[in-house]
Amino acid sequence: MLDLKDFIRDIPDFPKEGILFKDITPLWQDPAAFRQAIDTLIDRFKDERVEIIIGAEARGFIIGAPMAYQLGTGLIPVRKPGKLPYKTISASYDLEYGTDSLEMHVDAVSPGQRVLIVDDLLATGGTAKALVELVEKAGAKVIGIAFLVELTFLYGRDKLEGYEVFSLMQY
Amino acid sequence: MLDLKDFIRDIPDFPKEGILFKDITPLWQDPAAFRQAIDTLIDRFKDERVEIIIGAEARGFIIGAPMAYQLGTGLIPVRKPGKLPYKTISASYDLEYGTDSLEMHVDAVSPGQRVLIVDDLLATGGTAKALVELVEKAGAKVIGIAFLVELTFLYGRDKLEGYEVFSLMQY
Repeated sequence: MLDLKDFIRDIPDFPKEGILFKDITPLWQDPAAFRQAIDTLIDRFKDERVEIIIGAEARGFIIGAPMAYQLGTGLIPVRKPGKLPYKTISASYDLEYGTDSLEMHVDAVSPGQRVLIVDDLLATGGTAKALVELVEKAGAKVIGIAFLVELTFLYGRDKLEGYEVFSLMQY
Repeated sequence: MLDLKDFIRDIPDFPKEGILFKDITPLWQDPAAFRQAIDTLIDRFKDERVEIIIGAEARGFIIGAPMAYQLGTGLIPVRKPGKLPYKTISASYDLEYGTDSLEMHVDAVSPGQRVLIVDDLLATGGTAKALVELVEKAGAKVIGIAFLVELTFLYGRDKLEGYEVFSLMQY
């Protein structure tokens, strides 16, 4: 087994000064690391009868799409406002200054469906909380939330209490 | 075999009046259609010794990531300006009014590497041409360009002459 942290690159001062950004692109670039990451996430949820996977724009698609392919489920893209062409429902989340929101097609998930939410990074948990809200607004059930990387010092997990949260790497 | 066109939804007047948008989300949402689409694209290129796959933000990730996973290659994300954290190279392309550009990490592909470019839609071909330019700037070789949907009436294929262009569905 590879140590996947060997494929995470620290970028100082991105997107702004004082932030140490965890760049995941070297992991996606390496065939063995990419496969191991996806397979380990799948392994954690393969017995949970996942019916659909939801990925958040844009990096969440890179994890969610191969998981959906391999698990034999569909993939639902959740996107920034105005990007999805059909009727949508939305949920907002707090930014450092102000708020932002995410949209999902109104017919993307069905009531009662078992949904796995995936994203690349768990930071403050704001985006993940909005994803949970979208799924539940649609009447579906969040059976888990999976991340590649968790920044534990930001306590995002606290915002997701009561849900099954799994991350591959913690910092 | 499913008729994948059954999973493409027409959205009139999106993103603006007079445009009939081909919404691919129902295809991603359906497990069998999603798998068939990815597998058919893979099948076309599986004997071409693909070494790395490049996908364009954001919908290209949904096709490129499972193809990379299944073919056993890495995935390189090409993104809008300012999104990638490390040093980048860029290529611009024309919009109806003005220009836009795409960025790729400077160390994403290696000289001589055999690259497959993937995106969801071939329209005017501007984005695909910029992707080709990025790959060739890095000294790598474009062995093919794969799309889910091709809008043949926009003649994007003409901009990609000399390259192996493959699309699953044509309108």
